[in-house]
Amino acid sequence: MPRQPHPHWFRMLFAVRGSVLPRIALQLFLTFAMGCWAMYASTLPWPWNLGYTPAPFGFLGVSLAVFLGFRNSAAYDRWWEARKLWGLVVINTRSLGREALSLVDSPARARRLIGLSIAFAHAMRHRLQETDARMALAPWLAPADIDAVLAVRSPPQAVLGLLSRELAEARRAGEVNPVLLPAMEERIGQLEFALGSCERLAFTPMPFTYAVIIHRTVHLYCIALPFGLAQTVGLLTPVVTTFVAYPFFALEALAQEIEDPFGESINAIGLEEMVAGIERELRGLMAQADAGQPPIVRVAG
Amino acid sequence: MPRQPHPHWFRMLFAVRGSVLPRIALQLFLTFAMGCWAMYASTLPWPWNLGYTPAPFGFLGVSLAVFLGFRNSAAYDRWWEARKLWGLVVINTRSLGREALSLVDSPARARRLIGLSIAFAHAMRHRLQETDARMALAPWLAPADIDAVLAVRSPPQAVLGLLSRELAEARRAGEVNPVLLPAMEERIGQLEFALGSCERLAFTPMPFTYAVIIHRTVHLYCIALPFGLAQTVGLLTPVVTTFVAYPFFALEALAQEIEDPFGESINAIGLEEMVAGIERELRGLMAQADAGQPPIVRVAG
Amino acid sequence: MPRQPHPHWFRMLFAVRGSVLPRIALQLFLTFAMGCWAMYASTLPWPWNLGYTPAPFGFLGVSLAVFLGFRNSAAYDRWWEARKLWGLVVINTRSLGREALSLVDSPARARRLIGLSIAFAHAMRHRLQETDARMALAPWLAPADIDAVLAVRSPPQAVLGLLSRELAEARRAGEVNPVLLPAMEERIGQLEFALGSCERLAFTPMPFTYAVIIHRTVHLYCIALPFGLAQTVGLLTPVVTTFVAYPFFALEALAQEIEDPFGESINAIGLEEMVAGIERELRGLMAQADAGQPPIVRVAG
Amino acid sequence: MPRQPHPHWFRMLFAVRGSVLPRIALQLFLTFAMGCWAMYASTLPWPWNLGYTPAPFGFLGVSLAVFLGFRNSAAYDRWWEARKLWGLVVINTRSLGREALSLVDSPARARRLIGLSIAFAHAMRHRLQETDARMALAPWLAPADIDAVLAVRSPPQAVLGLLSRELAEARRAGEVNPVLLPAMEERIGQLEFALGSCERLAFTPMPFTYAVIIHRTVHLYCIALPFGLAQTVGLLTPVVTTFVAYPFFALEALAQEIEDPFGESINAIGLEEMVAGIERELRGLMAQADAGQPPIVRVAG
Amino acid sequence: MPRQPHPHWFRMLFAVRGSVLPRIALQLFLTFAMGCWAMYASTLPWPWNLGYTPAPFGFLGVSLAVFLGFRNSAAYDRWWEARKLWGLVVINTRSLGREALSLVDSPARARRLIGLSIAFAHAMRHRLQETDARMALAPWLAPADIDAVLAVRSPPQAVLGLLSRELAEARRAGEVNPVLLPAMEERIGQLEFALGSCERLAFTPMPFTYAVIIHRTVHLYCIALPFGLAQTVGLLTPVVTTFVAYPFFALEALAQEIEDPFGESINAIGLEEMVAGIERELRGLMAQADAGQPPIVRVAG
Repeated sequence: MPRQPHPHWFRMLFAVRGSVLPRIALQLFLTFAMGCWAMYASTLPWPWNLGYTPAPFGFLGVSLAVFLGFRNSAAYDRWWEARKLWGLVVINTRSLGREALSLVDSPARARRLIGLSIAFAHAMRHRLQETDARMALAPWLAPADIDAVLAVRSPPQAVLGLLSRELAEARRAGEVNPVLLPAMEERIGQLEFALGSCERLAFTPMPFTYAVIIHRTVHLYCIALPFGLAQTVGLLTPVVTTFVAYPFFALEALAQEIEDPFGESINAIGLEEMVAGIERELRGLMAQADAGQPPIVRVAG
Repeated sequence: MPRQPHPHWFRMLFAVRGSVLPRIALQLFLTFAMGCWAMYASTLPWPWNLGYTPAPFGFLGVSLAVFLGFRNSAAYDRWWEARKLWGLVVINTRSLGREALSLVDSPARARRLIGLSIAFAHAMRHRLQETDARMALAPWLAPADIDAVLAVRSPPQAVLGLLSRELAEARRAGEVNPVLLPAMEERIGQLEFALGSCERLAFTPMPFTYAVIIHRTVHLYCIALPFGLAQTVGLLTPVVTTFVAYPFFALEALAQEIEDPFGESINAIGLEEMVAGIERELRGLMAQADAGQPPIVRVAG
Repeated sequence: MPRQPHPHWFRMLFAVRGSVLPRIALQLFLTFAMGCWAMYASTLPWPWNLGYTPAPFGFLGVSLAVFLGFRNSAAYDRWWEARKLWGLVVINTRSLGREALSLVDSPARARRLIGLSIAFAHAMRHRLQETDARMALAPWLAPADIDAVLAVRSPPQAVLGLLSRELAEARRAGEVNPVLLPAMEERIGQLEFALGSCERLAFTPMPFTYAVIIHRTVHLYCIALPFGLAQTVGLLTPVVTTFVAYPFFALEALAQEIEDPFGESINAIGLEEMVAGIERELRGLMAQADAGQPPIVRVAG
Repeated sequence: MPRQPHPHWFRMLFAVRGSVLPRIALQLFLTFAMGCWAMYASTLPWPWNLGYTPAPFGFLGVSLAVFLGFRNSAAYDRWWEARKLWGLVVINTRSLGREALSLVDSPARARRLIGLSIAFAHAMRHRLQETDARMALAPWLAPADIDAVLAVRSPPQAVLGLLSRELAEARRAGEVNPVLLPAMEERIGQLEFALGSCERLAFTPMPFTYAVIIHRTVHLYCIALPFGLAQTVGLLTPVVTTFVAYPFFALEALAQEIEDPFGESINAIGLEEMVAGIERELRGLMAQADAGQPPIVRVAG
Repeated sequence: MPRQPHPHWFRMLFAVRGSVLPRIALQLFLTFAMGCWAMYASTLPWPWNLGYTPAPFGFLGVSLAVFLGFRNSAAYDRWWEARKLWGLVVINTRSLGREALSLVDSPARARRLIGLSIAFAHAMRHRLQETDARMALAPWLAPADIDAVLAVRSPPQAVLGLLSRELAEARRAGEVNPVLLPAMEERIGQLEFALGSCERLAFTPMPFTYAVIIHRTVHLYCIALPFGLAQTVGLLTPVVTTFVAYPFFALEALAQEIEDPFGESINAIGLEEMVAGIERELRGLMAQADAGQPPIVRVAG
């Protein structure tokens, strides 16, 4: 995933990638239409012309910004926590692979430990996206193990159980010094932590009531707004209304999107890509295990 | 708990599940009634017509939004911390079960350790909701132990004491290598941490004075508001007032609800469901212990 | 400390417990009086009638709300951190007691370790409130040790030194396996952390300059406010002014109160109650040590 | 990097170093030009003179400030997290060097471990800036190792693999007590954590949609603003508009800059300087290893 | 450092200690003078009388408050983090001293370890304030060691190297059980963490660009403000302007002050006092080491 610099400020005004405009087009159009009606109605006598002033919209708008700002922060924090937890998965599968090579005195065992780490990453991704992991696990687990793993509620947790059992066998076979084992157990514990925490994010949404309160207030506000503006803004009412409504609708839609960080939106976390990266790195370590560790080359300096 | 996508934006405007409308209906109605009176009074001579302008309401409203935003953040943080701590319970009971199978060389001991972990989860839930845990503990503890456990202030802590004692016996019986014991002690320490921290959340509410100050200000504000609006908004006073009051009343009610995360509201954390999930997972590990660990099946690749 | 549900919304408007009204009554009264004068002065010719508009108060009020919001968050964070640290004390004295019973193979030693943990909790409370700990330590330490402990700057730290020495003796007497000792040392380290951090909170207040700047701005603002409102609000000036001033004065007073979490206000943390709870729990463990560990009763299931 | 005190407040008004003015000059100029046109147009009849009031700009501007404030916080948090992670690199390479000298009983081995730590710091910097590390690694690794290291996706991770292997050899050669090895493994784990987390920051930008929404709103706002001000501000419209637009444009530009903390802007983190500092410190430790540890000189006191 | 209660609310209005008034007196005076001129100019014909309205100042002021609020939070967080890190220094030097007495079976060695801990605290303080540590180190290190320590970039880190070497000698001399060594290494690691993190705070200021943008906006705002107020506020313009400018200038000056927490301002952290406290406590432990550990006195109860 190469770094993407921000585009030039002018081209960014018309960026399409990542825009939420399609999702909020209908709401914006309704607001525009309401603005047209309010503009026309302001030329009619009462009761068509409600004739009120923008004052209440002013301070309601600011309050709304504060509440929406809170909602946005909370949604962004969920997204960023999810990304951090996947960072932990990357880091600890690397650690486990590195330590399997340096602390376990059996290349075949190290190979199997690395293979199980890859299987864990696949299983975790499918668990979070609620898709079928059978195909992805096939190269790394025996069919009987796959059946056992997929039978439980959290398949990646079952893969960690296999990892743990593999380490126990290594201990009994004398392939690893018992005083070094807790370090590797700690890596498994970290993966367990990342898994449990991602499940928390995936299956415990923000209190739905927040979404409802803010959703309602945003929509009521934007629909009532043109009537407040029509008298002072006149013919520009539809344009100004739509313009004021844009950041409210857009930020609310974005908050809904990123508060489910493992979903399918363009702003969700790229789990497939991350799992592929983990697999590529660990396959490299596996090749080292297969080759036997190369002798260390000393640098002269 | 399957993932629940957000409903369509239009249906969300009329969502009933999770709405706080019933709880704030009376306040909204009073505000509406006050709006009707203010609208009528604005056509009378002084002193019925107080005749002041919306200016002070504007900036008071914004200040109120800032303070309410703070209150909301603090309440949400309590809720989310509670959920994270229960995530720790899920993660560490899993870890304890996994390690009981892989580090303790006695299936019968592993079985008992797993059973005590299940008992802990039940005891912790009943402790936080202040209900009677006897029924839930019956399948996992001997009657004498149940009596002893329920006699102390924090029964789940007593269950951890039993877990610790079981581990000490395993050590004395040579079923676990002493250098591996600290890893499992650490899991018990994590459960102890989650328990103590949840007790803190359950029994130390936010300073009550915050709630009082903001509650009073919100109510005074919403009741005085129509008199500020009547002159400029006219016949629409009741509607506009109610509309402005809605997010204030609703967010305050929601903050009261989620700041007690182990309560009984619809937005509280689903402890029963979480404990049932823990029990289901650990029963699976227990079945493995009963069967003896199956031989590891090697994958060809 | 049983859970306290929020009172009914109507009764909460008139709650007395926890209200800061008594503390800010004088300021509110002065504001009211200033409002009366401004109302009267607005009917006089210049220079009595300063005749300016509410505009500057509007945006100054909002700025003030932002700054006061910051102050409030920082004060609340101090209070909540203090509560979390005392949670750590609860958790780690429990852990120490539990591990003394399960890891140390000498009931008499376990009893003394538990007794020292109780002494630590008492000493820490008296240290933070700067009161005399002699009475509270008497049942748990020999008179000579009490003299030594009270002679140093931080008596609870000296109690931890005694705990550490007791563990060292247990190690030399072969009552505890050296590989298990680091786990218990870690508990002492956690108590040391909680103690040092609470001392930080107790003896390093927020920069006093913050308090001064915001205190001054709040008071200047509220005293000048009626002159800005008198022309548009008229006879209601005193009431409206007091109403606008209430949340500012109240939140500032509350921030002052909870930013010293070990103080004597009603919103401070209930240290006495917490220490009594710790003592009650640890006395229970001590009774277990005295009785010798009861034989484990196996559950049939 | 000596500490830089803030310049005098008057000179700071005209500071050039670190200013974003060059980056936003064009936008400010366009805003100024738009202001000139709006000022002129306000003297023409409709439709040239759109004639609307500043009211909607008022509350839209405040909302925008809230959203931009959120964006700024998130960008600053990324920058500060990146700096903290590089702090971890400094701290843990120091630790590793110190422990290589005190825990490994072979000066030659300690020397190689320190050399690999330096190589890690160089490799990590080049990884994050996506530049070629070959030159920087040449003094510390054998050519064959350099080829192997540069062949994988994350070269610094491969250097950690070499470190781990070196430690494993030390263990097999009996140069380090196995019970002390986990402490050094933990340092490598911390470096792994810093590396993985920095990769996360470098290659996962903030959701692009945030940038787009706020960028658009800022630009639309600043371009429309003069038409709202022209009637009340008159001839000063261009100046006032530019002045109001300045903090919005500047803070948005700064947020774009520091949200990529490893970039090339003046506000980015000075990686080159930090790596040079690490190398200087570790070379000093290496010299100690070469000299053999000097005998400890006892202080009399 | 005894606890300082807040002064009475009335005396606090005129507090001098900790006030930033002297630092911002000139800016306030200039604002006052500008206010006088604007008041006078508003009675002249155009072009002296610019005659614009306060509207743009209203919303610009609120935006400014949001941005300044962000700046303040970031500066306060730096200050508080610095204080927390020094808390870690207090806690971990205590731990190291306590463990030197209880885990190392040689009073002379324990004495030297404690002396080095004191030297570390002195060296760290002088490192952060960039002053000469020679005098402070003299009682604790041999002259040759002082020269070596002061020759490197970070002298306190070199003191930690001496501590680590002393522990290694204790291990080789059999004075400490190797399984207990990692606990003490961990304390050194914590001191290393506090040192590296404090260096980060001291030598990496907030992005200077933030300071520049907000500094400029605050000053432009306050200087232009009187022209916006003159028409509506009249003769009170100078007073009102100065009053509105006060919190902006004051909070900006305070943020500049506390964002450098190891500086020399009255609000900086009292490093001298903290180091003196550490020395006093550790000297007490040293006296215990000299006396040999007193026999433990058993309490009867």
